[in-house]
Amino acid sequence: MKAKTDKIYHECGITGIISNTRINIPEKLFYPLFSLQHRGQESCGITYLKKKKLVTYKDLGMVSTVLSHYLSEEHPSKIGIGHVRYSTHGGNKLENAQPFMFSCNKGDIAIAHNGNISNSDRLRNELFQNGSIFQTTSDTELIMHLIARSSKPTFFDALLEILGMIEGAYSMVLIHDGSLYAIRDPSGFRPLVMGKNENITVFASETCALDILHAEYIREVKPGEILKMDSRGLKSFSFGAGSRHSHCIFELIYFARPDSTVFGHSVHLVRKKMGEMLAKADSTKADIACPVPDSGNSAALGYSTESCIPLEQGLTRNHYTGRTFIQPLPSQREFAVKMKLHPVRACIEGKSVILVDDSLVRGTTSKAIVKLLKDTGAGEVHFRLTAPEIKHPCYFGIDIPTKEELISNRLNPAEVAEYIGAESVIFLPIESLKKCVKNPDDFCFGCFTGEYSVVPGNADRSRKE
Amino acid sequence: MKAKTDKIYHECGITGIISNTRINIPEKLFYPLFSLQHRGQESCGITYLKKKKLVTYKDLGMVSTVLSHYLSEEHPSKIGIGHVRYSTHGGNKLENAQPFMFSCNKGDIAIAHNGNISNSDRLRNELFQNGSIFQTTSDTELIMHLIARSSKPTFFDALLEILGMIEGAYSMVLIHDGSLYAIRDPSGFRPLVMGKNENITVFASETCALDILHAEYIREVKPGEILKMDSRGLKSFSFGAGSRHSHCIFELIYFARPDSTVFGHSVHLVRKKMGEMLAKADSTKADIACPVPDSGNSAALGYSTESCIPLEQGLTRNHYTGRTFIQPLPSQREFAVKMKLHPVRACIEGKSVILVDDSLVRGTTSKAIVKLLKDTGAGEVHFRLTAPEIKHPCYFGIDIPTKEELISNRLNPAEVAEYIGAESVIFLPIESLKKCVKNPDDFCFGCFTGEYSVVPGNADRSRKE
Amino acid sequence: MKAKTDKIYHECGITGIISNTRINIPEKLFYPLFSLQHRGQESCGITYLKKKKLVTYKDLGMVSTVLSHYLSEEHPSKIGIGHVRYSTHGGNKLENAQPFMFSCNKGDIAIAHNGNISNSDRLRNELFQNGSIFQTTSDTELIMHLIARSSKPTFFDALLEILGMIEGAYSMVLIHDGSLYAIRDPSGFRPLVMGKNENITVFASETCALDILHAEYIREVKPGEILKMDSRGLKSFSFGAGSRHSHCIFELIYFARPDSTVFGHSVHLVRKKMGEMLAKADSTKADIACPVPDSGNSAALGYSTESCIPLEQGLTRNHYTGRTFIQPLPSQREFAVKMKLHPVRACIEGKSVILVDDSLVRGTTSKAIVKLLKDTGAGEVHFRLTAPEIKHPCYFGIDIPTKEELISNRLNPAEVAEYIGAESVIFLPIESLKKCVKNPDDFCFGCFTGEYSVVPGNADRSRKE
Amino acid sequence: MKAKTDKIYHECGITGIISNTRINIPEKLFYPLFSLQHRGQESCGITYLKKKKLVTYKDLGMVSTVLSHYLSEEHPSKIGIGHVRYSTHGGNKLENAQPFMFSCNKGDIAIAHNGNISNSDRLRNELFQNGSIFQTTSDTELIMHLIARSSKPTFFDALLEILGMIEGAYSMVLIHDGSLYAIRDPSGFRPLVMGKNENITVFASETCALDILHAEYIREVKPGEILKMDSRGLKSFSFGAGSRHSHCIFELIYFARPDSTVFGHSVHLVRKKMGEMLAKADSTKADIACPVPDSGNSAALGYSTESCIPLEQGLTRNHYTGRTFIQPLPSQREFAVKMKLHPVRACIEGKSVILVDDSLVRGTTSKAIVKLLKDTGAGEVHFRLTAPEIKHPCYFGIDIPTKEELISNRLNPAEVAEYIGAESVIFLPIESLKKCVKNPDDFCFGCFTGEYSVVPGNADRSRKE
Repeated sequence: MKAKTDKIYHECGITGIISNTRINIPEKLFYPLFSLQHRGQESCGITYLKKKKLVTYKDLGMVSTVLSHYLSEEHPSKIGIGHVRYSTHGGNKLENAQPFMFSCNKGDIAIAHNGNISNSDRLRNELFQNGSIFQTTSDTELIMHLIARSSKPTFFDALLEILGMIEGAYSMVLIHDGSLYAIRDPSGFRPLVMGKNENITVFASETCALDILHAEYIREVKPGEILKMDSRGLKSFSFGAGSRHSHCIFELIYFARPDSTVFGHSVHLVRKKMGEMLAKADSTKADIACPVPDSGNSAALGYSTESCIPLEQGLTRNHYTGRTFIQPLPSQREFAVKMKLHPVRACIEGKSVILVDDSLVRGTTSKAIVKLLKDTGAGEVHFRLTAPEIKHPCYFGIDIPTKEELISNRLNPAEVAEYIGAESVIFLPIESLKKCVKNPDDFCFGCFTGEYSVVPGNADRSRKE
Repeated sequence: MKAKTDKIYHECGITGIISNTRINIPEKLFYPLFSLQHRGQESCGITYLKKKKLVTYKDLGMVSTVLSHYLSEEHPSKIGIGHVRYSTHGGNKLENAQPFMFSCNKGDIAIAHNGNISNSDRLRNELFQNGSIFQTTSDTELIMHLIARSSKPTFFDALLEILGMIEGAYSMVLIHDGSLYAIRDPSGFRPLVMGKNENITVFASETCALDILHAEYIREVKPGEILKMDSRGLKSFSFGAGSRHSHCIFELIYFARPDSTVFGHSVHLVRKKMGEMLAKADSTKADIACPVPDSGNSAALGYSTESCIPLEQGLTRNHYTGRTFIQPLPSQREFAVKMKLHPVRACIEGKSVILVDDSLVRGTTSKAIVKLLKDTGAGEVHFRLTAPEIKHPCYFGIDIPTKEELISNRLNPAEVAEYIGAESVIFLPIESLKKCVKNPDDFCFGCFTGEYSVVPGNADRSRKE
Repeated sequence: MKAKTDKIYHECGITGIISNTRINIPEKLFYPLFSLQHRGQESCGITYLKKKKLVTYKDLGMVSTVLSHYLSEEHPSKIGIGHVRYSTHGGNKLENAQPFMFSCNKGDIAIAHNGNISNSDRLRNELFQNGSIFQTTSDTELIMHLIARSSKPTFFDALLEILGMIEGAYSMVLIHDGSLYAIRDPSGFRPLVMGKNENITVFASETCALDILHAEYIREVKPGEILKMDSRGLKSFSFGAGSRHSHCIFELIYFARPDSTVFGHSVHLVRKKMGEMLAKADSTKADIACPVPDSGNSAALGYSTESCIPLEQGLTRNHYTGRTFIQPLPSQREFAVKMKLHPVRACIEGKSVILVDDSLVRGTTSKAIVKLLKDTGAGEVHFRLTAPEIKHPCYFGIDIPTKEELISNRLNPAEVAEYIGAESVIFLPIESLKKCVKNPDDFCFGCFTGEYSVVPGNADRSRKE
Repeated sequence: MKAKTDKIYHECGITGIISNTRINIPEKLFYPLFSLQHRGQESCGITYLKKKKLVTYKDLGMVSTVLSHYLSEEHPSKIGIGHVRYSTHGGNKLENAQPFMFSCNKGDIAIAHNGNISNSDRLRNELFQNGSIFQTTSDTELIMHLIARSSKPTFFDALLEILGMIEGAYSMVLIHDGSLYAIRDPSGFRPLVMGKNENITVFASETCALDILHAEYIREVKPGEILKMDSRGLKSFSFGAGSRHSHCIFELIYFARPDSTVFGHSVHLVRKKMGEMLAKADSTKADIACPVPDSGNSAALGYSTESCIPLEQGLTRNHYTGRTFIQPLPSQREFAVKMKLHPVRACIEGKSVILVDDSLVRGTTSKAIVKLLKDTGAGEVHFRLTAPEIKHPCYFGIDIPTKEELISNRLNPAEVAEYIGAESVIFLPIESLKKCVKNPDDFCFGCFTGEYSVVPGNADRSRKE
């Protein structure tokens, strides 16, 4: 699947719900997971507490398929967590689907995790030497082992201990002994927010998952914070003090849903601003500004406003392109693009077009899109990207191809334009991108700059590069 | 399903393909049908000629599910037709899925049909009296009987005879004796176009079905034209001379895909023009103009341009709302809207919003959308519709609720606004609508005006009203 | 599928249920159809009357899959019919699945039919000439047309008229205007019985379908009898007086379930008797007598008793050989046999074996079975068949291969033995077979003798031979 | 499901295949697993070595469904193992499906296991204390942990060490570092055999799995033997010397397929002998001896031969009773029996019947069968069981209800007869049963006598009783 899409991918979305009274937790978990579907379409699952026993249900497939039966079933419970997953490494095995549930000397524990432990190889090797077994390639299994192995007497002490050992990105939710934990790594790589409605407290990767539950947004789980919630109320603990914040800028560029608020920013407005900044850096004359739907929609709006080049819906998106359909097809980029994007001849023919999209990875999809426009009669196509040139790997949960595959490691923008068949290509300069957020120093731009707030171990680095 | 959606519905999309050499016709039919999916999602099917025998495959479900196996199979053939269907009457039975295939004294015949025979009740009764049997409620079965019953000696003479008997809307494609026929009723209610690429000639309801095959648009099948295509080439025959044209205006307002050219008009540009005309008729001050995606996208663009009220993507559309998911849910409008449309708080909160959509039927969906915006903090919501008030039934294939259910038969615009919770509601005046097309006299506005170019029989009329 | 099995096949099983009070008719129909599954595994379906409307549900697949949802649904009704089908001709199309339901000038009618109209080609041609259309190759569609075309004023008169026109085998059940009809052709080719429990009257192809409903067996529907049952009670009408009875002997040899009573005979006891008669005609010495399970079970018991050769379960039958599994496999007879039948080495090794089965068609399956036994170490294998040599076609609903494919048209028993690898082959002599039933003159032995009580038209004959 | 069947159940069947050349191992594994389906119908799976990586595929469902795709795919490999599973404890979770595959400090290892570790609770607790995590309730996970935890430097030394730690029943196959291991516990509770054909060496629970591969039976894996097979050939190692053999007698009474050779005995012949011994202990006069098919078939044959009471097929078994069908049904024993077993009235009516079956657990199924016969008119029903009275739990992999549920703990044979509605009930005396096998001291009769060769730990015992 990865080869088919030419997008960079996120690992997961997570949610957790706790209530003071017994409610239908599995049904309640359905909605935020459905809202987080864009963060992972490969597998999904939930774990909830049923009469003091943790119950897990997970499968390969979409939330609307795998979990919809919970909409018409009754499972009274007070606490549950859920997960949607796109695999970065490890293949599309059901074994890697989350939440994970296990028994150990600290009790029965369920975890759902979003991120990437950057020192996992070293930790895994140590566990190996001490006789641990691994049934998956998931970082979550690593965390499970560390908790079990900890010599600390209580679950909470063990948790604190292992949070001092693991590095990287790890927004996660856990259930242990009737309490729900929400934890965010000290750098705050991945988002995690808290909301509330009259009955329940919800944690989720994005605010759109709160909205669907009519839950009011309260605040973010802070970087380096453990929130513990149970019948006695909410407690907050800190760890990893002094770490620099490193919010993933790609959450704002591409991953998050435009209607979400992420790292305190409206995703839609930030993207619109990126479009404006792109236009400021660009004096190209053109007849229309046109988004690649839906990822370029917000930015194209900003571009058009700033440049006064009229916005046009020159490409429409097909709503019937399901996964079941994609799979038997030949894996040609051009074909896949044609089944998904449809050019509007009357807008395109004879026009010079500013085409606004989020990012360029290998360039194959963009090449197919430019060809589609040219075949429809576009005069000129000027490709504009809200992401700077991607040149470096990510150690924190984003699935970026190898350095060799990244087009910007091989070609400069003019060469990229030639490769994809466009008249010009402009990437948003990193300095302009920084102006789109309130506190750019709190963000990670590592995939553009190669500079990371957390330095990953050598072993991991070599594995990726 | 109909009750769930509060939209008016079309019956079908059709396609036909003929080639001089043996090619993989079923695979070729997949693409135009996939492109016509928006015209019918209940069932789909194809018929093709395999070694002088007609073979039909059809089932309930989407093209991407039902027909995708043809993408990896080989079925050499020279000729085939296909159909996507949304049921207006007759329920969602597989029996009514098309194409229909039958044997009679004129030979083996396959038909796929889009439209509605307005004098079908009378014709059906006559056939009943003469001993015909009906296994479905489809007009297509009626046409089959008429062909078989005709006393004319040849298929073609019989075809001409029955085209003189049936009234109403009937774009259709047929296979008989190695020839492909494309036929459009004398009023031209439903679209039907012809395209060509190096290998094949294609007929389809919309041009978007030609584009996906890289077929060049040649022309429309004319109202009252029979096109017969076989190995000896293309022949054109006329019938029903002197009829007034009656193109369905709703094809342009809502049914057709924006990237199609229908009745000689770019659908997207006509809709944009409708948005402009709406703005001209409107002096409301507002902060943003926002479409109800995707049906209001083009018009909102026009509205914004004309009014200089900034366009905003205040509502985003969920791409994971599949049919499988919808079905087990409680059939509440509000819930269904929430799973499909997501407001962007940062755009909406505290703003006065011009909301642009295509039409208002019962008003229940619009009410839920307005509530969604208000719950998100919108200050004012002004609802704008590119369709005039719908007050009358359609006899030509559109599924419109009973007069009592149509909100515009009960309430005036101010009352509608109150009902749906909006500050104001404006319908595009019919005179403005007429200005959006080149030759308004060639269109049917019957559902707005109650005036129809073809007067349906009393029996049918009473059935509908 | 036919090529895979090397068995001769029956067309169908039928049932009809009527009650004086509203009961859950679809659930009630499930049981007799489940009991008749052996008579047809390709498709199944039911039609029942729901608030004066006939409702049909049918699909390809087994009763336990297609109709099991009715076990947990409620559909109050007083009358229904059902059908299981194995296709003889017409392919495995859903279109041919029964019951058929249609509207005509005699009203709304549903039919389920078991048999074969031997003069169908002629009747079909006449209907063609008069403008009838055929969507299937089913005889049932023919019957539907004849009823509709009849000039008789009432349904019942039309029914009587057409029963005078059609020839061949036709046990059937119909619903018309709140009445249930059960009809058997004047020759009584196919079985049809009536049963009753406190609430309902049931018609079914075999008594095993009555047993599962705790319905008491009342009597057979007589050859040439129409039974009409409705709220006013049961009426019997006769037609086709003077016809010679022609019960299909293969119902007793192979088709019917051993626990059924068919044509007044216990199927199991008749088969046991066939085994005894085989033994009487046989002086072979052997160590064990062994059935080919399950079709040879009853006869092997009779053979063992009569011959005093000990019965052994030398072959066991696999219960997990489902249809889903069979289909992707290579269509080798030997493989299919191995997946289904397992020899018990300890019984077989070094032994001379009398192997008892029902019939030999092409001989390919028998050859594979003999090889299996020899590979397991059997010393001698003597094949014994309760059916005489099959040499002729059937015009009454049994699917027999062409004359050329029938092994007994090419080889005498000694040559057959050589072909299948057995030491000897003995077919039950036809005179012995006749002694197994009470009134042999009432039976059809046409596939053995080539003599038929009803002489089929030339057209049909040539089609089959 | 367990509640529905009133049978005692086995845990699993296993197989392993190794070849000197690359062959299609997954396809080859299909056949023995298909043959072992009777040993477990809940889930199945395989692991094979593909380019030095272990690949596992497993799912809930039957072999014919889950694994049939391998029949038409090519996966060259030299080594693989497979498993079919019926859950005793742990519920029907996919998590418990086997084979298990894991990475540890001894390398990558795959295991498939049949049996029950009787001291698992104690071992599990020790691992817990040392920081192991458990994701399943499977004994196989326990074995995995022990191997990983072992301080021995090599896999083989670790294996030997842990085989000294675990107690109970454990026939298993493993893959490690290109070698296939087949291991049987020192008591030999569960069967495990080796076979060979020209290309491959096969290990399997029963010989029927060798037969389907045309593999010649070589010998049993001996109790307390490790067979290691790789490209350098076969090596045998012993462990656990001095243990008493404890073959599970229920393998012969019920679990194994009649065509298998198990513990050196032909299953069919042993069962026939049990029937003879039953007859010797019985002077009841009756008209017929009739098996409950298929589990009573062999024994009824023996009973009939010894007693000279004629054998009859008074009950026939339905072949269309699939799992999909059973599940939506009301869980009434009587109904389930009726859908599966059909009495032949002509054999039963007015007759006194000796009914031969394998064992009585709760008595509910037997009660329903007796009622079925009586309803069909049987005069007397005398129930005969080849198993003695079951009164004790099993610690070695058999799923026996609690002591309270076992009918023989509450009622004596006369009372049992009254409860199930039979005229008499006779259980095969344990002394007679012992005469049916060559060396009765090598068998475990614990569920009848309460005496076990291996004394399970207190913790486990209390858990079961």
